[in-house]
Order: sequence, then structure tokens, then C-alpha cells
Amino acid sequence: MSKSIFYHAGCPVCISAEHDIVSLIGAENVEIVHLGDNPGSIEKAEKSGVKSVPALVTPQGNVLHINFGASMEDLK
Amino acid sequence: MSKSIFYHAGCPVCISAEHDIVSLIGAENVEIVHLGDNPGSIEKAEKSGVKSVPALVTPQGNVLHINFGASMEDLK
Repeated sequence: MSKSIFYHAGCPVCISAEHDIVSLIGAENVEIVHLGDNPGSIEKAEKSGVKSVPALVTPQGNVLHINFGASMEDLK
Repeated sequence: MSKSIFYHAGCPVCISAEHDIVSLIGAENVEIVHLGDNPGSIEKAEKSGVKSVPALVTPQGNVLHINFGASMEDLK
């Protein structure tokens, strides 16, 4: 199975969701991308359909927006 | 590990998220509760902190609200 990608921005909501997701699906199955530290990845995330963080992009390409931390516009 | 509980209400957003979650964490690790078919479970879901569906309650008791299908008020 290819990896999921978890996008976040370091906010408390994001970190809490990250711990839950890693616990549920396993650290080896998910790549964590901090968009605050890696603003160059914002465009890729948006092209994947990410509208807010935290969000999980599944191996099938579906986007699961989890809770609500920040909109993509707020990160720019 | 105890099971997560995935609450949904049968809407297309819910079903799509259900497939993703089952694929990610495994059908054996998650109990699926359809609140439209089981309105008696709405109170339990709310006490767990569920504010909208679809939502996943983790074994640690955290609530991950995924995308947005319907508010709990809409289900009553």
C-alpha cells in the first residue's frame, strides 16, 4: 500500500489529530508534511484537493479534512 | 487495541469517508454506527463529543470530525 500524506500546520488541533492518525494507521503508512515549515508544498496540497488543515490524503487520492485548524489561505 | 467507532448517517459524504477509513485502519478495528438507522445512539455519540457526521471516535476517546456531512441537530 502506498502512503497517505497528512498535511498540517503545527497548530494544537493539527498536532492532536496527527497523534490520532499515526496511532490509528501506523507511522510507517503516513508521510507527515508541515506546511508552515514547508510552504513550497502548499501548491501540491491544494492540487490534491486540500482546502484546510489538518487533512489526510489517502493512497486512493481522497482527501479527508479532519476537524478544522486553518484554511489554506491562512497559510500563505 | 480497542475499536474505534465511526458514526455516520448514510449520506454520500459519510459513505465515501467510511470506505476511506475502513481501508486505512481495517474493518476489524472499527465499529460502524449508522445514526439514521439507530437514532438511539445519537445521545451516546454526542456524549462522546461528536458534533457532526461523519466522525471517528478513537480508542483513546478523541473525536475526529471528518469532512462535513450533517450536524447532530439535523439528525434528530
